[in-house]
Amino acid sequence: MNEDLMAKIMDQVMKKMGDTPAEEPAVVEAKVEDASGFCTTGCGLTEFVGTAIGNTIGLVIANVDYNLHELMNIDKKFRSIGIVGGRTGAGPHIFAADEAVKATNSEILLIELPRDTEGGAGHGSLIIFGAEDVSDARRAVEVTLKELNRTFGDVYGTSAGHLEFQYTARASYALNKAFGAPIGKSFGITVGAPAAIGVLLADTAVKAANVDIVGYATPGNGGTSHSNEVILQFSGDSGAVRQAIIAAREVGKQVLGTLSNDEIVSSTVPYI
Amino acid sequence: MNEDLMAKIMDQVMKKMGDTPAEEPAVVEAKVEDASGFCTTGCGLTEFVGTAIGNTIGLVIANVDYNLHELMNIDKKFRSIGIVGGRTGAGPHIFAADEAVKATNSEILLIELPRDTEGGAGHGSLIIFGAEDVSDARRAVEVTLKELNRTFGDVYGTSAGHLEFQYTARASYALNKAFGAPIGKSFGITVGAPAAIGVLLADTAVKAANVDIVGYATPGNGGTSHSNEVILQFSGDSGAVRQAIIAAREVGKQVLGTLSNDEIVSSTVPYI
Amino acid sequence: MNEDLMAKIMDQVMKKMGDTPAEEPAVVEAKVEDASGFCTTGCGLTEFVGTAIGNTIGLVIANVDYNLHELMNIDKKFRSIGIVGGRTGAGPHIFAADEAVKATNSEILLIELPRDTEGGAGHGSLIIFGAEDVSDARRAVEVTLKELNRTFGDVYGTSAGHLEFQYTARASYALNKAFGAPIGKSFGITVGAPAAIGVLLADTAVKAANVDIVGYATPGNGGTSHSNEVILQFSGDSGAVRQAIIAAREVGKQVLGTLSNDEIVSSTVPYI
Repeated sequence: MNEDLMAKIMDQVMKKMGDTPAEEPAVVEAKVEDASGFCTTGCGLTEFVGTAIGNTIGLVIANVDYNLHELMNIDKKFRSIGIVGGRTGAGPHIFAADEAVKATNSEILLIELPRDTEGGAGHGSLIIFGAEDVSDARRAVEVTLKELNRTFGDVYGTSAGHLEFQYTARASYALNKAFGAPIGKSFGITVGAPAAIGVLLADTAVKAANVDIVGYATPGNGGTSHSNEVILQFSGDSGAVRQAIIAAREVGKQVLGTLSNDEIVSSTVPYI
Repeated sequence: MNEDLMAKIMDQVMKKMGDTPAEEPAVVEAKVEDASGFCTTGCGLTEFVGTAIGNTIGLVIANVDYNLHELMNIDKKFRSIGIVGGRTGAGPHIFAADEAVKATNSEILLIELPRDTEGGAGHGSLIIFGAEDVSDARRAVEVTLKELNRTFGDVYGTSAGHLEFQYTARASYALNKAFGAPIGKSFGITVGAPAAIGVLLADTAVKAANVDIVGYATPGNGGTSHSNEVILQFSGDSGAVRQAIIAAREVGKQVLGTLSNDEIVSSTVPYI
Repeated sequence: MNEDLMAKIMDQVMKKMGDTPAEEPAVVEAKVEDASGFCTTGCGLTEFVGTAIGNTIGLVIANVDYNLHELMNIDKKFRSIGIVGGRTGAGPHIFAADEAVKATNSEILLIELPRDTEGGAGHGSLIIFGAEDVSDARRAVEVTLKELNRTFGDVYGTSAGHLEFQYTARASYALNKAFGAPIGKSFGITVGAPAAIGVLLADTAVKAANVDIVGYATPGNGGTSHSNEVILQFSGDSGAVRQAIIAAREVGKQVLGTLSNDEIVSSTVPYI
């Protein structure tokens, strides 16, 4: 009985703390369909597209106000915009948005990384797609929300710090805009927090395979919005990029394990 | 009995987490008067003025040290300064300070927005008033602390994100300094977090009424200290400013409701 | 029985929240020695040195990759680097690293302050030592980790805010790099969060003794990575520096006590 009570209390506490349990990633589709579930009142708004893991919301504006166009410095031809933003996760959202750009008739207009993660060491994200037609903007948001379950696969969060690894066989415009990834080439990132771990991951990755370094972001060099992460960005031969990531992931799990009392588990299911 | 126990535990957890429950906003007056309550040891210090909602503290320095004048780049004529700072809330503090500037013989010397909210998506604040006489500096701090109960009225916080709306019929020097609000005109702001929600609020506000946009702050454009918010600032006819805010608030509550399991409730009592 | 259950639940919650209880600071030595304890899997990695209070990890890279040298803009003569990084604490880590630089054949290459503290108002840290020999880099990291128990002694954390005081009789290269402290002179800092408290501490310190102000960091002036702190840095005669700190600490505890329901207690044992 005590066990039951404790589980009940932990549920309440976690809900209050905004903790999305890793083992139950938010499935976007279900929520949008199921009006009795998580998403209720918001479903009535035409602007609402869906929600996803990481306290992520997807929205669409069919006819962006003229003034907002000016403020956001967006070309007027994009009558419609899609908006994806979350409290936790920037890498997962950017790699998901990259798939959306490939799959839809939309363009990436803005990618920004707030300092967030709900008290964690990393980022949230704000991504804006532009489209001439609202159905294209909506589709871009839908694809992004759906891809998030995959791109959170190599995010390993603990109370002490986190690891993130991302890989794509072919980078497109979202990764180019956010990280300067060469279009059409294989591209990956390693992320470690606290930042000390990220330095070791970077060293491990570049030693493990012959990759071309695209960028290196630290708390103080402007690349991480002062988050407690070091991020290495690299492209190259598909096998090499994967090999660099797999080597860094192996080391990262061991090192984060020394700091954390939690188990080092995927937020969803590893994909690399 | 289990219910009682659970409530007791939740109380303990929340206290440990620094959560000020929305339903019991800190009443400044009571604390200052009642030496046996919240504010005890600090009451003996002449510099202490009071505390308020949002882990806010109000202090006063009667004779600012010469060196501190230099460091803070403050005109020497302001022998006394009043200091208001909190862990949660920037909009509420700035709009409250604006009333204090109107009501007292003091000037706004500094307004800064740390990235804080105790693990949330937004800001804390640091506001400094200057005065030639310490009683004026103290009065400015007292008015600000008192106004906070009102200005937290349209702050809606949840574990997933938050909304904030502020309105004044006549902007004064605090709002001018912080946001560039035209002095003497009606002025308002909409804030949404995660930032994606703030973009939708901005679009909703400018479509709802004929307002003049004063500013637009995002996580990456320098306006939010990398917090996960988008803030729209606008002035105009009093009716128009209110109409823009009310429309955005309506949409905001629906959208935040899709993301949050918590109810979307005012931190104190809505005033707009 | 209810008490037991509650304690058990609080333990679970705190563990989940990443709260390192102040009364049980992580003792580095024990962990490194005891392979069955906190540090398990990581001990097998040659790069792992140890962990410490503040979710701090110490690592070493014997032969830094050529590319990483470039990315970090480090002189190639430093074949080996030592890395110390934590989620909570920057002052404690920098003052500890200062002792390490004095005691070992290593140099300080980088000190960065992420905005972190696991949801608190302050910083984490990233510190990199360079050495020609890996044993020197390792030694620098070991000394830093060991010193942390001492340098967390005048860190007073509560859910509402925190205070920090640091003092050294003789500043060396870490304090010079991070704060511009004059080499070989007595040096100290006062830190208060929320930032309003830090302003009062600064005024109290400079009034209490004849010290030379070296720096003053606020949420908006670039010195705190947007954290909710004000930091005063000063050098001078050893007695004066200590006197300034002791006066500020006295005031700080009283003022933070008005804001916090927690007791104002040292993270380890006060040393000043």
